[in-house]
Amino acid sequence: MNQVEICFSPELIHLHELKGKIAVVVDIFRATSTMVTAAANGVLAIKPMDNLESCKKMKSEGFITAGERDGKKAPGFDLGNSPLSYLNGKYQGEKVAITTTNGTVAIAKSKEDAEIVIIGAFLNLDATVAFLQEKRKDVVIVCAGWKGKYNLEDSLYAGALVEKLGFAFDCDGALAMSMLFQKVKGDLPGFLKKASHAKRLQNHNIEADIDFCLTFNRFNLVLQLQEELLVTK
Amino acid sequence: MNQVEICFSPELIHLHELKGKIAVVVDIFRATSTMVTAAANGVLAIKPMDNLESCKKMKSEGFITAGERDGKKAPGFDLGNSPLSYLNGKYQGEKVAITTTNGTVAIAKSKEDAEIVIIGAFLNLDATVAFLQEKRKDVVIVCAGWKGKYNLEDSLYAGALVEKLGFAFDCDGALAMSMLFQKVKGDLPGFLKKASHAKRLQNHNIEADIDFCLTFNRFNLVLQLQEELLVTK
Repeated sequence: MNQVEICFSPELIHLHELKGKIAVVVDIFRATSTMVTAAANGVLAIKPMDNLESCKKMKSEGFITAGERDGKKAPGFDLGNSPLSYLNGKYQGEKVAITTTNGTVAIAKSKEDAEIVIIGAFLNLDATVAFLQEKRKDVVIVCAGWKGKYNLEDSLYAGALVEKLGFAFDCDGALAMSMLFQKVKGDLPGFLKKASHAKRLQNHNIEADIDFCLTFNRFNLVLQLQEELLVTK
Repeated sequence: MNQVEICFSPELIHLHELKGKIAVVVDIFRATSTMVTAAANGVLAIKPMDNLESCKKMKSEGFITAGERDGKKAPGFDLGNSPLSYLNGKYQGEKVAITTTNGTVAIAKSKEDAEIVIIGAFLNLDATVAFLQEKRKDVVIVCAGWKGKYNLEDSLYAGALVEKLGFAFDCDGALAMSMLFQKVKGDLPGFLKKASHAKRLQNHNIEADIDFCLTFNRFNLVLQLQEELLVTK
């Protein structure tokens, strides 16, 4: 049976073997939720980037630019990091270059070794489960965390994915988070609003974003990294 | 109100501010459980050391030497890393130099910045809680983990300490682990025997060690680092 494990922070990724495996990168609040929403609303391709300045320059290559640091829209970008910006097909047919505080760092580190990199969110959980069950490869769930630290929303997503996937694990993080997910899944928004990053976001008046990011299975697609671009599978 | 936070791995310790705070270092299976047991059984002082060879040489300075790597007793040492070795005052009045795979690394990293370093175990949980409540300083619980990775037994101890301490927290790890501790505390040994390190130890036939390390409040003492030596407070 295939195995699943959780890496709680990009700073611990060197402790996990990613070669030959699928990395599922997750940054619930909000990078990966935003990417999934953009793709589901007709964005053709998403270029996740580490660097703020390089990302901003993608404007000249015809990209819509999205930049966020510390929960706020970065100056000079078309968009920040809200999934709601992409609703109703507003950027249908466009390409988006995006850089965020945590999520795009986790993608950059994961692609160094993983055979396949996909993007996870509660918004497309079941589609991701179906994709992974079909691929039959070992899986490492890479939580973006908050500036290197463990965070609750990413690790609870990881617990949900472990539970639904049904793969074997020899990973204490997978045991802890699948158990915690079982305990709190009845009121995930209520519990996660106590999380430190959710509280940080509430200070920026983006409660609507939080509620949106905690919706299960609004979209039926998988986003996979292919030659620097995230595209729908 | 004082604050408490959890650092899940020595590899993440640079993300936590330890200056002016108390670090509680925990390595349930088995370094810190062993240290607490040794002190409670009359060992006068314990010198935690990083390096295997330097530790072994402490024999010539009159120390009993204890060395463990990968769950097994290291060659050339008097003892391995079992708390049971110290029962019945077998090493009463002695000094012990000890090096282990994870625990002594966590102590070495914590002492660089923390104002006070103490040693935590289920075996002396209530005494530790009373000590911290009296000191009224912010607390960072430093989990030794397993070779840098998150582990369940250390983080559940952290959750127990967070719950019993009653300090404030703005730390997702503290929220997650206090909640998980509440869920599993009714059968902590049953749950923790599924943990990866416990399974690793079972392969070495040390189930008695595991049961012993999961006993609450067998000893009423606090172990504090003072000038390279752990001594009873």
